[in-house]
Amino acid sequence: MRNSYIHLEFLKGKPVQELDLEIIERKGKGHPDSLIDGACEAVSLALCKYYLNNFGSILHHNVDKGLLVGGRSKVSFGGGEVMEPIYITVAGRATAQISSEDGLQQVPIGGIALTAIRDFIRSTMRFLEPDKHVILDYRIKQGSADLISVFKESDKTPLANDTSVGVGFAPLTPTEKLVLDTEMLLNSDKTKRQLPEIGEDIKVMALRRGAKVQLTVAAAGVAGLIPDKSHYVSVMGDARGKVEDLASRVSGLDVDVKVNAGDLYSKGSFYLTVTGTSAESGDDGNTGRGNRPTGLITPMRQYSMEATAGKNPVTHTGKIFNVIAQNASGRISREVKGVKEVYVRILSRIGSPINIPQVASAAIVLEKGASSSNVSSEVKDIIMEELSNTKSVTEQILSKSVVLF
Amino acid sequence: MRNSYIHLEFLKGKPVQELDLEIIERKGKGHPDSLIDGACEAVSLALCKYYLNNFGSILHHNVDKGLLVGGRSKVSFGGGEVMEPIYITVAGRATAQISSEDGLQQVPIGGIALTAIRDFIRSTMRFLEPDKHVILDYRIKQGSADLISVFKESDKTPLANDTSVGVGFAPLTPTEKLVLDTEMLLNSDKTKRQLPEIGEDIKVMALRRGAKVQLTVAAAGVAGLIPDKSHYVSVMGDARGKVEDLASRVSGLDVDVKVNAGDLYSKGSFYLTVTGTSAESGDDGNTGRGNRPTGLITPMRQYSMEATAGKNPVTHTGKIFNVIAQNASGRISREVKGVKEVYVRILSRIGSPINIPQVASAAIVLEKGASSSNVSSEVKDIIMEELSNTKSVTEQILSKSVVLF
Amino acid sequence: MRNSYIHLEFLKGKPVQELDLEIIERKGKGHPDSLIDGACEAVSLALCKYYLNNFGSILHHNVDKGLLVGGRSKVSFGGGEVMEPIYITVAGRATAQISSEDGLQQVPIGGIALTAIRDFIRSTMRFLEPDKHVILDYRIKQGSADLISVFKESDKTPLANDTSVGVGFAPLTPTEKLVLDTEMLLNSDKTKRQLPEIGEDIKVMALRRGAKVQLTVAAAGVAGLIPDKSHYVSVMGDARGKVEDLASRVSGLDVDVKVNAGDLYSKGSFYLTVTGTSAESGDDGNTGRGNRPTGLITPMRQYSMEATAGKNPVTHTGKIFNVIAQNASGRISREVKGVKEVYVRILSRIGSPINIPQVASAAIVLEKGASSSNVSSEVKDIIMEELSNTKSVTEQILSKSVVLF
Amino acid sequence: MRNSYIHLEFLKGKPVQELDLEIIERKGKGHPDSLIDGACEAVSLALCKYYLNNFGSILHHNVDKGLLVGGRSKVSFGGGEVMEPIYITVAGRATAQISSEDGLQQVPIGGIALTAIRDFIRSTMRFLEPDKHVILDYRIKQGSADLISVFKESDKTPLANDTSVGVGFAPLTPTEKLVLDTEMLLNSDKTKRQLPEIGEDIKVMALRRGAKVQLTVAAAGVAGLIPDKSHYVSVMGDARGKVEDLASRVSGLDVDVKVNAGDLYSKGSFYLTVTGTSAESGDDGNTGRGNRPTGLITPMRQYSMEATAGKNPVTHTGKIFNVIAQNASGRISREVKGVKEVYVRILSRIGSPINIPQVASAAIVLEKGASSSNVSSEVKDIIMEELSNTKSVTEQILSKSVVLF
Repeated sequence: MRNSYIHLEFLKGKPVQELDLEIIERKGKGHPDSLIDGACEAVSLALCKYYLNNFGSILHHNVDKGLLVGGRSKVSFGGGEVMEPIYITVAGRATAQISSEDGLQQVPIGGIALTAIRDFIRSTMRFLEPDKHVILDYRIKQGSADLISVFKESDKTPLANDTSVGVGFAPLTPTEKLVLDTEMLLNSDKTKRQLPEIGEDIKVMALRRGAKVQLTVAAAGVAGLIPDKSHYVSVMGDARGKVEDLASRVSGLDVDVKVNAGDLYSKGSFYLTVTGTSAESGDDGNTGRGNRPTGLITPMRQYSMEATAGKNPVTHTGKIFNVIAQNASGRISREVKGVKEVYVRILSRIGSPINIPQVASAAIVLEKGASSSNVSSEVKDIIMEELSNTKSVTEQILSKSVVLF
Repeated sequence: MRNSYIHLEFLKGKPVQELDLEIIERKGKGHPDSLIDGACEAVSLALCKYYLNNFGSILHHNVDKGLLVGGRSKVSFGGGEVMEPIYITVAGRATAQISSEDGLQQVPIGGIALTAIRDFIRSTMRFLEPDKHVILDYRIKQGSADLISVFKESDKTPLANDTSVGVGFAPLTPTEKLVLDTEMLLNSDKTKRQLPEIGEDIKVMALRRGAKVQLTVAAAGVAGLIPDKSHYVSVMGDARGKVEDLASRVSGLDVDVKVNAGDLYSKGSFYLTVTGTSAESGDDGNTGRGNRPTGLITPMRQYSMEATAGKNPVTHTGKIFNVIAQNASGRISREVKGVKEVYVRILSRIGSPINIPQVASAAIVLEKGASSSNVSSEVKDIIMEELSNTKSVTEQILSKSVVLF
Repeated sequence: MRNSYIHLEFLKGKPVQELDLEIIERKGKGHPDSLIDGACEAVSLALCKYYLNNFGSILHHNVDKGLLVGGRSKVSFGGGEVMEPIYITVAGRATAQISSEDGLQQVPIGGIALTAIRDFIRSTMRFLEPDKHVILDYRIKQGSADLISVFKESDKTPLANDTSVGVGFAPLTPTEKLVLDTEMLLNSDKTKRQLPEIGEDIKVMALRRGAKVQLTVAAAGVAGLIPDKSHYVSVMGDARGKVEDLASRVSGLDVDVKVNAGDLYSKGSFYLTVTGTSAESGDDGNTGRGNRPTGLITPMRQYSMEATAGKNPVTHTGKIFNVIAQNASGRISREVKGVKEVYVRILSRIGSPINIPQVASAAIVLEKGASSSNVSSEVKDIIMEELSNTKSVTEQILSKSVVLF
Repeated sequence: MRNSYIHLEFLKGKPVQELDLEIIERKGKGHPDSLIDGACEAVSLALCKYYLNNFGSILHHNVDKGLLVGGRSKVSFGGGEVMEPIYITVAGRATAQISSEDGLQQVPIGGIALTAIRDFIRSTMRFLEPDKHVILDYRIKQGSADLISVFKESDKTPLANDTSVGVGFAPLTPTEKLVLDTEMLLNSDKTKRQLPEIGEDIKVMALRRGAKVQLTVAAAGVAGLIPDKSHYVSVMGDARGKVEDLASRVSGLDVDVKVNAGDLYSKGSFYLTVTGTSAESGDDGNTGRGNRPTGLITPMRQYSMEATAGKNPVTHTGKIFNVIAQNASGRISREVKGVKEVYVRILSRIGSPINIPQVASAAIVLEKGASSSNVSSEVKDIIMEELSNTKSVTEQILSKSVVLF
């Protein structure tokens, strides 16, 4: 049977939200690991756009390795300066030469990469100035392609060139949702207007024991907007208030919020930055070390180690299967009655079309009394549909309408 | 009560080995991600040694970010050449200036780092010559310390300077053990003598469905030792034979072994390298993207995203808690009757001594009929012991007697 | 006698303009060597400004080593693209930490350097976009200073910390002047308005044999403004016309002007660029390899190998003595009757105040009938005055009112 | 007439050695500028060897731009350490892809470059360990060539692809010879055996006024071999003794020798290094900033600004013409009776065969009573011979039998 790779199993244990313990983390968009993820993804998207505009097809590339070396800054209430800039480099490969009927065409990888990273920083960070605070570099090896064979292949489903695994799950537990929403709230446009003093580098960590949640938020203060300690205390208090307000609307949880628990006011220790990110003062970043495609790091869950950022959105199963698994999980959770919790796991088979994986498996925790046979066929259908739909995944990635990290 | 952070819960579900599906991966020691992990850890160990020899104490450092940019090679049966060298850089921070009674002492971070990476490559790879095939660099920001306060603090338990989580589990399932042993076998000294043609870059991926295991091995051939196709076929056949032999000794599993499934002999496509690693031809690496402290990537298990490589082994809970969680899991699994499977999860509390975490939790699947109360006290004791024993963890890391990745 | 270092000699030979042969070169402001000279000098000036504004004194720095690695571009009539960006790095040392009564103050060397290079490019080149076409880096080692001792020393004349030589001469021969004026004309604002198609990378080489001058001009065309060959021919013809017009006003010389003599129209070889500089396509640059403080390279003259660009303008005799020698030569040539040609050569004495060199010597070709004794005292006075006036030299350098390269 | 480019003129003035003032400098082989010159030339030579061995012909390359960023060291009597390594990069272009009848062949530029620089350092410096004290890098852009057309062209004289000038002169004055011999003596194998404490970084500066010469030698001490001040004083005294002995054999000069005039014993200031070069502690280097093809920097002479190091020895007139001019000068000075001093100046004509320059000119100071007509024809013959002999120049460069810097 063609779809012998579809697999289903039913888990006997409790869903995560009924377990006694959860630990969840989210690195905000200004965290060093998020910044270098964002830089890699921005370069991939810019390459995609260039390839599409110029060659009608997304050509091969993978720029999913990167390094952000933190700078050195001097900061105190009222302001500060970046003493040594942050260094950012994006590494990988990209098609740089295309032989076509019109002769050999070349791709300005360097300009595309540098512009993409710079634009990404400008659109993400309010106070990190790429011209002044960052050294931008790239180490992208150049590949070549033959456009005729690209076109010939473009109707076929691409082949997996690696054995890699994507994992998704749904639904989020209330605590997971709270962690996600906390960072989104504090980094929202609205909050940035109300509390511009809060930088983009926000890390949220939740520990749930039973119904009690300890929510630890580390939020970089922007020194230039915080004249003194009392202002700092007030701003961080407001931030805590906002999060407490958010948490109070989550029923069934008793949430204790701490903001910048590492501060020691008595010793003059505050979390202050010039630029809104700890990357300015020695915190480094590597691609693929931050959030997973749920937007979260969930060590007590099944999840994939594959970095999504920077991988090409057409053929790299390490990216696509993560998105498909996440999409399928969401649909199963929302659409299939009787499913309490679901994990989708997809493993590619090297050399096979990417829509024919080694296995595409759902592990399901059923609602009490739900019938596994009813559930099974619906779940299988959803997985088949999502797998057959890789072009739509590519489009979601290109339009940034899907979470990658 | 002082140890209110100790937590226990019992899982109702089946242990992983009784589930219907497992997906497991191991990146061998010559894989690009393993190489850059190894480079970072080598630098940390060299720094530790230098600090201990010169200052009697391991001073602050974290060099847990790195980048390996793959080279470009030309290879065919009988040999080849590296056309563009691999680029390796290790990033982070390290104490470079120490004020002591004898005045300001300085640490030659650069020489230590370069020598450590070079020695690591030489001791790990037989055919990758650091002088010819690699550009070595480092981007380690320099910190400073006051030795007097270091000594004053040295008797105290260090404080956690971050909120990070370590996770361990035990026992390995038979399939997990097989994946681990497969790479260890193929990279063992004995196999290297018998089959020197097999490079160090070996990736093992297992898919278990019920009792059937698909074991996919990608093993770089060393072109200089493989004169032609028939030799290649023979060598890869021997490798498969060795793995099949290993697998046949695992009771209860029906293992199908594939070596270099991506090869297309008819199209002249073989997995050949000059140096034994795909890093020579464009495969890049980032620190913390490879194996977890079990030596495996286990997407269907609880595990931590924290990179262990390069973090300092005294105060960085992202490293220490992973080792403690793994050690405690092992002991619980071996020593406590009635435990079928155990996960240990430890979360640090920023600003608190590292042996007083926010939570240290065991999640246990009991043997049928085992008494949870008997198990509980033993498990708690083991966790307490392991937590109280961070100095021993440091020693294990320094002596390389514990797996980190 | 205090000024025993003053030395004078009279040369018996003819002045250069009466010799039968001259070879003279000028690298225009967009030439790769000029660009990296300009980048180093821009960083030095920005550091001076920062030090003056923040510490009231120019602190120690020397950033007189640099590297520009040419990019790769694709260009044809009508436009083109930079495929690989240019890489620019400025190297040296600069005071980064200043201990003062207010505690340790730090200098943001990185931001200063990056901003200075970027602004320099923007103010020099119309079509070279630093954000898109250039990777900017710096490798400036950080030094430290004690402000109290700086202030204590600031009234004293600084000590020479190296043995270096400065050389100047005057007057320029008509051919030298023509070379200088040719580039200035083609790179003038007026010409750029009339002939915007001519890029900033202009190299002028003159060979004079007797009264005949072969003037070879290499001028980068800006492809985006040159739709086709006939436009190119017309533009380069206009450029030649302008230079011929300039040359026709030099009495006594018969000047043959060639523009882009390397072009081979028949083979489709034209000197086209995207950005106005050959640095875009592989022409590299090093600091100190371009024009001397006359604005020229004059291999048949006495001149100094010292790079002026990037050296600090207070204590580095390699910079200051070149300016003083040039200033003194000019004054002697203009002010002292009977002097036909003069060379001034000044050699510093390490460890001595910079106004007390090992030697400050003038070599003079007298007008026919001039009295050496009359000339001598005036020349000595001028040299003494100029040497005593190093603060004014610093100011000239800061205000960019003196030619350095 | 075919050789209308041959030009001769007779200078009326005195030869340099009869002038009253000379200033001469030589940077020894371990000086930062010499090291980076040497690194570039080593890479060029290694490329030549590779091209010849593999393709029978020296393919296009120019690696004549480089940067050495000095390290940071800590040193005192008895030893020291390099705290931050030296960074060395060689830049330029080299043919990396050759299309031939056997298909596309590739050149491992990176490995060739890194190995060449490393070997150069090992053969030049006794105590500078490339594995520990140096970060080696390269930035060589890759070009391509068509071997068939290379072979077709190989019998023809190559065409000049730039307008550049080479200058030589002879004979050296006694003071120039003394400067050259001083460094050669102190860096000779014999002296290194007798006075191993003297490092390779030796700078010699001479000021001659009349018959009095002030010879200033800066010689890096090797701290590991110098236990204390008295040893230092003794070693530097021995070095001075050797130089004084050498100088005493130069008739007609009264030479005062100073070694390390910048030392201030009373303030504990000595010229000490770990590695024998000031490059270890912040002294940077750029290619083409050191000695000219005479081995000297002679600001009071005619000389060329062209860097010889790293340029290809077949077609780059900036290198070849400097060697030819120097060779021709030497022969003229030795072989032609009546020539007291001669300068040879050769200017290439872009697009013409390199043996047909724009001008090849000798400027001659005749012995008293010598006949210019006799001299003329001999001088012209020598210049023609040397110009026709570019292949021999290439061989001299390849066999390192000619001084380049």
